[in-house]
Amino acid sequence: MSAGHVSGTAVRGHAITFTGDPFFDDDAFVDIEDALILSQDGVITAFGPYEQTKASLPEGVEVVHYPDHLICAGFIDTHIHYVQTGIIGAFGSQLIKWLNHYTFIEEQNFADKAHADEIAKRFFDELLRNGTTTAVTFCAVYPSSVDAFFEESKRRGTRMIGGKVLMDRNAPDGLLDTAKTGYDDSKALIGKWHGDGRNLYAITPRFAPTSTPEQLEAAGALWKEHPGTFQHTHVSENLGEIQWVHSLFPERAGYLDVYDHYGLLGPRSVLAHGVHLTARERARVHETGSAIAHCPTSNLFLGSGLFHVHDAKDPKRPMHVGLGTDVGAGTSFSILATMNEAYKVAELNTYPMNSIKSFYLATLGGARALQLGDSIGSLEVGKEADFVVLDPNATPLMAYRSGRAESTEELMFVLSIMADDRAVKTTYVAGHQAYEREDR
Amino acid sequence: MSAGHVSGTAVRGHAITFTGDPFFDDDAFVDIEDALILSQDGVITAFGPYEQTKASLPEGVEVVHYPDHLICAGFIDTHIHYVQTGIIGAFGSQLIKWLNHYTFIEEQNFADKAHADEIAKRFFDELLRNGTTTAVTFCAVYPSSVDAFFEESKRRGTRMIGGKVLMDRNAPDGLLDTAKTGYDDSKALIGKWHGDGRNLYAITPRFAPTSTPEQLEAAGALWKEHPGTFQHTHVSENLGEIQWVHSLFPERAGYLDVYDHYGLLGPRSVLAHGVHLTARERARVHETGSAIAHCPTSNLFLGSGLFHVHDAKDPKRPMHVGLGTDVGAGTSFSILATMNEAYKVAELNTYPMNSIKSFYLATLGGARALQLGDSIGSLEVGKEADFVVLDPNATPLMAYRSGRAESTEELMFVLSIMADDRAVKTTYVAGHQAYEREDR
Repeated sequence: MSAGHVSGTAVRGHAITFTGDPFFDDDAFVDIEDALILSQDGVITAFGPYEQTKASLPEGVEVVHYPDHLICAGFIDTHIHYVQTGIIGAFGSQLIKWLNHYTFIEEQNFADKAHADEIAKRFFDELLRNGTTTAVTFCAVYPSSVDAFFEESKRRGTRMIGGKVLMDRNAPDGLLDTAKTGYDDSKALIGKWHGDGRNLYAITPRFAPTSTPEQLEAAGALWKEHPGTFQHTHVSENLGEIQWVHSLFPERAGYLDVYDHYGLLGPRSVLAHGVHLTARERARVHETGSAIAHCPTSNLFLGSGLFHVHDAKDPKRPMHVGLGTDVGAGTSFSILATMNEAYKVAELNTYPMNSIKSFYLATLGGARALQLGDSIGSLEVGKEADFVVLDPNATPLMAYRSGRAESTEELMFVLSIMADDRAVKTTYVAGHQAYEREDR
Repeated sequence: MSAGHVSGTAVRGHAITFTGDPFFDDDAFVDIEDALILSQDGVITAFGPYEQTKASLPEGVEVVHYPDHLICAGFIDTHIHYVQTGIIGAFGSQLIKWLNHYTFIEEQNFADKAHADEIAKRFFDELLRNGTTTAVTFCAVYPSSVDAFFEESKRRGTRMIGGKVLMDRNAPDGLLDTAKTGYDDSKALIGKWHGDGRNLYAITPRFAPTSTPEQLEAAGALWKEHPGTFQHTHVSENLGEIQWVHSLFPERAGYLDVYDHYGLLGPRSVLAHGVHLTARERARVHETGSAIAHCPTSNLFLGSGLFHVHDAKDPKRPMHVGLGTDVGAGTSFSILATMNEAYKVAELNTYPMNSIKSFYLATLGGARALQLGDSIGSLEVGKEADFVVLDPNATPLMAYRSGRAESTEELMFVLSIMADDRAVKTTYVAGHQAYEREDR
């Protein structure tokens, strides 16, 4: 089945994509029932209706046809922890206890590079099996855990964002760095990995409670010194956490203001959760061009709360929003399963989020949140050829339900509510088939 | 693989079951790492540790061994609508709109017996594929839709509860009966199906808003005339619905009191949802021995609210509670997926519900809620031999995570958070293998 070995890849099928943000633009959604996607050297060279596009097909390139499937840009997971792959589904607590009981134990295993290598491989297997082609991931505090992640990403050819966790207090000794070693190690890792292949680096303070003011200041300085890198942390996930931040930083106006003060907001700043941001804080996220990673399966699993996506997309001060699985607190690697719970969280907030918006958040919305809207997130000439072929007939029940869908939007909604990894027929990374479901 | 063709069935493996309610009794959970379950004529004849039980093995009966699996009583779905199988995953509204836009259209298709037959078959395929051996289901208003359901149940040999919907107002004309025809038709169906094989009948007013006082009165009378039958309806699912009931029955103290007034509470009364019951109403559910079907995937999908399972199990006035999928408003036939969202709803209510409690609700808890605790819901000599063999290694990620589980309880939790229909290796109904997963 795999193409791409001659001089390019050609994939044909029902394709959907976006030219803008459907929260604000009713014409942003593109639906082509019979499309052709051509790519060469990892980049899309032609995209459009098959009949109009087939003339661009280079000689010798075989067209791989996926009838009865739906093709879209690869999913973007804007917040995940690869080092927590092994503690997915750990019972029984809210954020701070969960960190202390599970996370801070597990992450110590990543001092061992061989362990990190093994989990990195497993992690990428899961991402691609779920159609995720870009993820913004926390590594552990150890630089070698970052090497393991980016080495595996390079092997797979994926557009990935990651970084070493910075934490110099309020965690077990074995997990702590210092403001200086954290800065130095991160700087070395930026030099080693940022821009190597498709890899991008994120300066990664875990969250305000586990970094001293000195470390946050160093992180802000490092980010400023390296334009194009990312900043990735957590904010306002849990009410107890917020109180803790207030007690640790009484001189700051609030949780978000801690990051603001240390220069950690702005374009390419990715803030996981933001469930309990105040009105003032939401305006500040908007003003600075920072992004929120909305992680519904995690927010429900830890009982953190219900993120207001409708409010986040208030046209008066829209925030950048992407979807995140937040594995290990999230309960699935599947962005489709994440759409299911994003829909439910929105319903509980009395906002019916349609599937066009869900798929946008999972693709171009995520890309734009990461300031990568020019290179990934949609099917468009010149963009990187990361895409996923979805199977709306993956289970007997899905096949029955999809057969009754009366529009592409309804088919997408069925996928967003009923699908899991089985609905991913194949995942293309930079024009090459990186995963294909075993036939059953 | 199938046994049961000689003179009985013998199944060996790691088994879990309950002798009481783990919400109140720490010794209620039974965990036998190497168990043997013998059955004959649909009934369990021996159950216990393999070494102690193998002497009871009749000659000629082959032992089917499921190493690395987990065996438990078949799942009990205490609230579902088989006639809504085709509208699972229908976009965008809360309860009343959802009924008008989707349900009341779809159910009219069930005037056609051939359609009802087809969907009944599909419905049972889904139940058994998900390890559900007993379900309490709404049929449509048409008696023939009830025939289709019970005929299929008889073919499968399942312990099922169902009934014709009663509704004589506030719905399209094609879906309405009258107080008299509803009574007469239900009475005839009770005569035809209640106690035929393993089938049991439920008198089924949809909910207070779609029945006149005359119809509710007739339903109460009919139930009284037929001891052993069930009463199945909805209560306090959605805040708008509750207001509507108040306006339709201003003379009643509240929503639950409508049912109380017409004699529709008591043992074998199954009330779906109860998300917004008042303290007085919860006490009344307890006093009358009625049961609540907790349907988290539906409550989230329709944005109805967060059921308080911890409060429901208040030892001062515990209510009977079972789990329900509530397909089509529920988003999955899987009781395991339902456990996932039951856990999340409980977490949002700051109550960490462990997996022992989840599995109890899904098995013996459901059976007791239905007053069927003497015949189904646990592995015990004399009980009906309905059980499910679960595969904790159903996906690569589950296999990895399960391999790290340090206790049976943790393994059960992993299943309750990560599993779906793939984790059902095989389902036994009355001692016979009724479903087996295709090997992949």
